[in-house]
Amino acid sequence: MEQKIKNIGVLTSGGDAPGMNAGIRAVVRACAYHKIKCTGIYRGYQGLIENDFEELNARSVRNIINRGGTFLKSARSRRFMTVDGRASAYENLRSEKIDALVVIGGDGTFTGASIFNKEHNFPVIGIPGTIDNDIRGTDYTIGYDTALNTVVEAIDKIRDTANSHNRLFLVEVMGRDAGDIALNAGIGAGAEEILIPEENLGTDRLLESLKRSKKSGKTSSIIVVAEGDQIGKNIFELAEFIETNLEDYEVRVTVLGHIQRGGSPSCYDRVLASRLGIGAVDALLEGKRDMMVGIKDRKLTYVPFDLAISGENEIDIDLRRVADITSI
Amino acid sequence: MEQKIKNIGVLTSGGDAPGMNAGIRAVVRACAYHKIKCTGIYRGYQGLIENDFEELNARSVRNIINRGGTFLKSARSRRFMTVDGRASAYENLRSEKIDALVVIGGDGTFTGASIFNKEHNFPVIGIPGTIDNDIRGTDYTIGYDTALNTVVEAIDKIRDTANSHNRLFLVEVMGRDAGDIALNAGIGAGAEEILIPEENLGTDRLLESLKRSKKSGKTSSIIVVAEGDQIGKNIFELAEFIETNLEDYEVRVTVLGHIQRGGSPSCYDRVLASRLGIGAVDALLEGKRDMMVGIKDRKLTYVPFDLAISGENEIDIDLRRVADITSI
Amino acid sequence: MEQKIKNIGVLTSGGDAPGMNAGIRAVVRACAYHKIKCTGIYRGYQGLIENDFEELNARSVRNIINRGGTFLKSARSRRFMTVDGRASAYENLRSEKIDALVVIGGDGTFTGASIFNKEHNFPVIGIPGTIDNDIRGTDYTIGYDTALNTVVEAIDKIRDTANSHNRLFLVEVMGRDAGDIALNAGIGAGAEEILIPEENLGTDRLLESLKRSKKSGKTSSIIVVAEGDQIGKNIFELAEFIETNLEDYEVRVTVLGHIQRGGSPSCYDRVLASRLGIGAVDALLEGKRDMMVGIKDRKLTYVPFDLAISGENEIDIDLRRVADITSI
Amino acid sequence: MEQKIKNIGVLTSGGDAPGMNAGIRAVVRACAYHKIKCTGIYRGYQGLIENDFEELNARSVRNIINRGGTFLKSARSRRFMTVDGRASAYENLRSEKIDALVVIGGDGTFTGASIFNKEHNFPVIGIPGTIDNDIRGTDYTIGYDTALNTVVEAIDKIRDTANSHNRLFLVEVMGRDAGDIALNAGIGAGAEEILIPEENLGTDRLLESLKRSKKSGKTSSIIVVAEGDQIGKNIFELAEFIETNLEDYEVRVTVLGHIQRGGSPSCYDRVLASRLGIGAVDALLEGKRDMMVGIKDRKLTYVPFDLAISGENEIDIDLRRVADITSI
Repeated sequence: MEQKIKNIGVLTSGGDAPGMNAGIRAVVRACAYHKIKCTGIYRGYQGLIENDFEELNARSVRNIINRGGTFLKSARSRRFMTVDGRASAYENLRSEKIDALVVIGGDGTFTGASIFNKEHNFPVIGIPGTIDNDIRGTDYTIGYDTALNTVVEAIDKIRDTANSHNRLFLVEVMGRDAGDIALNAGIGAGAEEILIPEENLGTDRLLESLKRSKKSGKTSSIIVVAEGDQIGKNIFELAEFIETNLEDYEVRVTVLGHIQRGGSPSCYDRVLASRLGIGAVDALLEGKRDMMVGIKDRKLTYVPFDLAISGENEIDIDLRRVADITSI
Repeated sequence: MEQKIKNIGVLTSGGDAPGMNAGIRAVVRACAYHKIKCTGIYRGYQGLIENDFEELNARSVRNIINRGGTFLKSARSRRFMTVDGRASAYENLRSEKIDALVVIGGDGTFTGASIFNKEHNFPVIGIPGTIDNDIRGTDYTIGYDTALNTVVEAIDKIRDTANSHNRLFLVEVMGRDAGDIALNAGIGAGAEEILIPEENLGTDRLLESLKRSKKSGKTSSIIVVAEGDQIGKNIFELAEFIETNLEDYEVRVTVLGHIQRGGSPSCYDRVLASRLGIGAVDALLEGKRDMMVGIKDRKLTYVPFDLAISGENEIDIDLRRVADITSI
Repeated sequence: MEQKIKNIGVLTSGGDAPGMNAGIRAVVRACAYHKIKCTGIYRGYQGLIENDFEELNARSVRNIINRGGTFLKSARSRRFMTVDGRASAYENLRSEKIDALVVIGGDGTFTGASIFNKEHNFPVIGIPGTIDNDIRGTDYTIGYDTALNTVVEAIDKIRDTANSHNRLFLVEVMGRDAGDIALNAGIGAGAEEILIPEENLGTDRLLESLKRSKKSGKTSSIIVVAEGDQIGKNIFELAEFIETNLEDYEVRVTVLGHIQRGGSPSCYDRVLASRLGIGAVDALLEGKRDMMVGIKDRKLTYVPFDLAISGENEIDIDLRRVADITSI
Repeated sequence: MEQKIKNIGVLTSGGDAPGMNAGIRAVVRACAYHKIKCTGIYRGYQGLIENDFEELNARSVRNIINRGGTFLKSARSRRFMTVDGRASAYENLRSEKIDALVVIGGDGTFTGASIFNKEHNFPVIGIPGTIDNDIRGTDYTIGYDTALNTVVEAIDKIRDTANSHNRLFLVEVMGRDAGDIALNAGIGAGAEEILIPEENLGTDRLLESLKRSKKSGKTSSIIVVAEGDQIGKNIFELAEFIETNLEDYEVRVTVLGHIQRGGSPSCYDRVLASRLGIGAVDALLEGKRDMMVGIKDRKLTYVPFDLAISGENEIDIDLRRVADITSI
């Protein structure tokens, strides 16, 4: 028989994402609402192993809902990938009298959480927090909506220059395995082409498309390229390839990089994080564990970790068509 | 038997919303994609009556996806509410050889569209564009997501001042009949209380809540008030009421007003508008009419006008609980 | 003979302004650089009287340069306006071994500082921090540049709507005695008319100007009105007056209010605050007191408090001409 | 004897900068104010040679004050560097009856303007428009203030991530020859170190500074690097160098690139551009030529082209000290 939960630990792990602070805040205040203790664990699983704990109350999390990043900090932990490391973590939780964990992060975070849950029969609930939106079973992950806005705002600025100079711009956005950011932000920014990991349209199509663009009267073009694009060239090689194969094209490259991870979270991400944080605490108190709380069709949903991290990305055919039509 | 559609008219009507331009752009480019003509109609139904038409091609709508407002302009038209006005509109459409209409707007727009559709057997498809998110059958309307971000960013600024001075701020946001903006933006902005048209919590609860806040150590407070709030006082009266009934409270009022309607649309609104614009043209070509294209569970959906405008707003119980818990 | 300064106190007072945090940070780090102590005083002069002190080191002020408001908080203090209140403040400074003060604020703050300096022969240096830019002897005050950007961004959003509807908007901005914000932000936002406290152009000119605007083909108009405008009507009355006297004008009012005080400071305000903070500490160590450190022609300058607060605002004739020409 | 000026041409040339549109608008409206014609020339000097002209009136420039880039577009023109090219340009101006030119751009633009002015005795006035602020005789160039804000906002986002992960970030900003952007934005963003073209502090100082930072308790660091930095390594090599020489440092690189050129101009840049545009037209009508209108100590100033482009950048010693102290 499981013990009653009186103290919930919360940590953030993996790449940080805007809205993680809003998620922590919701966990802390849900604990206050249910009149149980809440313990913040710094630097993810590493802090769990190194006993980097701090008790948090409702006032500890004031004025953080609007801040990017995570005040609990995040880290990668090699030691948590070992049986010994996880054993230490478990001991620390026991001696701190923490009865359950909420972990906010992505697939690496959930993999660790699932193993830990099973190995030590310790209740863990996950909250999907990653700008990549690559977790299965949830429509959105915390930080994704903000990252899309950040990318679109950056490309809006680049377009000012592109329009002023009749130039071609290649903009690299995040997405090693998934083209969600590229496809959505590309449509949102009015990109002429969008290159994503899930499909290899080939360089011929790209050259054709650029020629057609020019013929149709377009005077500047922006191509959004996901990091993991399969065209077989890195973005600088791609720029050179285009300049070599098309006359009169001055190509410029921008790599957006880590600005995509930061920034004040959008309203959507703040509300989502608030809902999921409360849902995670509710779940633990109801006896759920080894699963993630996500959002599906605007309602909370609970998805076993194994399923959440099993995802293979498929291209969204509808969105691809939208991209093709709106870039005519 | 209906004629084949060779020329689609597009207009925006009612209050403008960020993303309307992205919607127009998608309609125009979908027409280009299907190789049919597209005619822009200025100033909504009024322009329809006054023959304010312009042919639009794919290049006519370049560089507008990121702009707030609507370049086709919007207007209220009393004449379109009359049988004669609509008859003139119909004559103009006939003589311009426009075969179908896409109208972007809210419930007033759809009411007119539906009557016109039936009266003249003229194919019309609607796209929900309003910051109020008060259309039935679609999860989101174009402009709503942007408006939420605008409100949250404004309140973030007010919070800077609130925190610096230990003050209470009342912030009025849009929403005569629906509390969606207030509730979501209130949660997103970390408001202490949210007053919405769908419920009258009464002034006692408000005073209790403020007292409890102070006791719990909060040094400043923000209360979000929807325009249509039912507490029975306008926001200036409410401020006075609080100052009279609670000691040591300096209350400040901000009325956000029309800044909520403007601004560059969020990525979400741009993608949504792009999808709905294409969906509207697809619908007309498939023979659909007298309905709205919306989004439900992230998929396009078609909803008869009569249903779309039949909505009564109900409070979202889940969100109310989220607001209550996160403001502890 | 004066003692060597080993401990400098810093406080913010009066209305908060973006960049105050950057100013505090610079004072604290300049103290660290000179290897002297720095003591933060909360809630302005009130905290001085109530002994609300905290020692600050270089790390205490990390990650605040980008935040609006003031983490030391601000307040009005009636007690500091009395001889007794100031005597208590002096006693507290003595027992805390604070040898000098840096006060960040506006004219009220400097008036108090000057009296205190003289009354107790206690070294005080002021830093001009107010969005109103109404301090004499400095080209800019901390927060002014940010406030201008905030106003311009807000009016940009309103213009989206104004353009979409052919409407007239009245926008009230801060400035009870000075039209600097109105005049600069009005030019920056492309306003058609700008009403400021320093001149009363009269309602006739306004009506003439609006008629001329319409004739010249303008389809929408934005009028920026400073709070202290001398036209003799409040902004709501003015709206009614225009609607009564001009046909076909739908007038909307927006009162920007306290969003003008908040927000992340602009680069200019952050650099200015950093320079002034260091300059204030330098000044105290060099034996200066009873004066403000300001910026004149891009160089630091020191201005006696008496002079700094003696200002009467004069209209900038050049800017008025710029406003008139660019709104043609 | 010179003819009376009845038609002024305006063009933008070189790299685009936010506020150029505001500058064009002011030139156009100043012409309207003086009741003379204004002719827009597209694509800089290239359009001059290719006869790419359009008459502009006060309404032609509506709703552009808030837009980045330049609607007249910009280009580099090799032909204008030849005597023949300039002769064609002159012929076009004669046949179009354009009596004088306003050119908005940087030092390359002014060099061409000065030669053209002398070669053909044709009146030209320049307006400094470049984000680099590298023109002599003016305190600010149009676009510089906006670029600083863009860089600071981007680094604010990166700092969210830096703080969450205890990481070191290298951020490359524009500035091949001048460190103004790096130095000001570095101070504004709270960078730990700032590397600029005007000084080579050497890699040893950098490593020392980073070690000291860590010792002092800093958990993350941002180093701003100007493109033209003289440390002898490109930014990727620098990252590797640091990772090799300092343990426990995970280094990330971001190259901000062309987002620094775009964006809606700040209020300062809009007002500056408005003043300079009017000042340029005033100057031509007063008989001035072969010079630039700039801003010095907040007043308009006129500087011969030869002087304006003679600049060598010197490091601002004061700002360097501010950077050193505030990064303690």
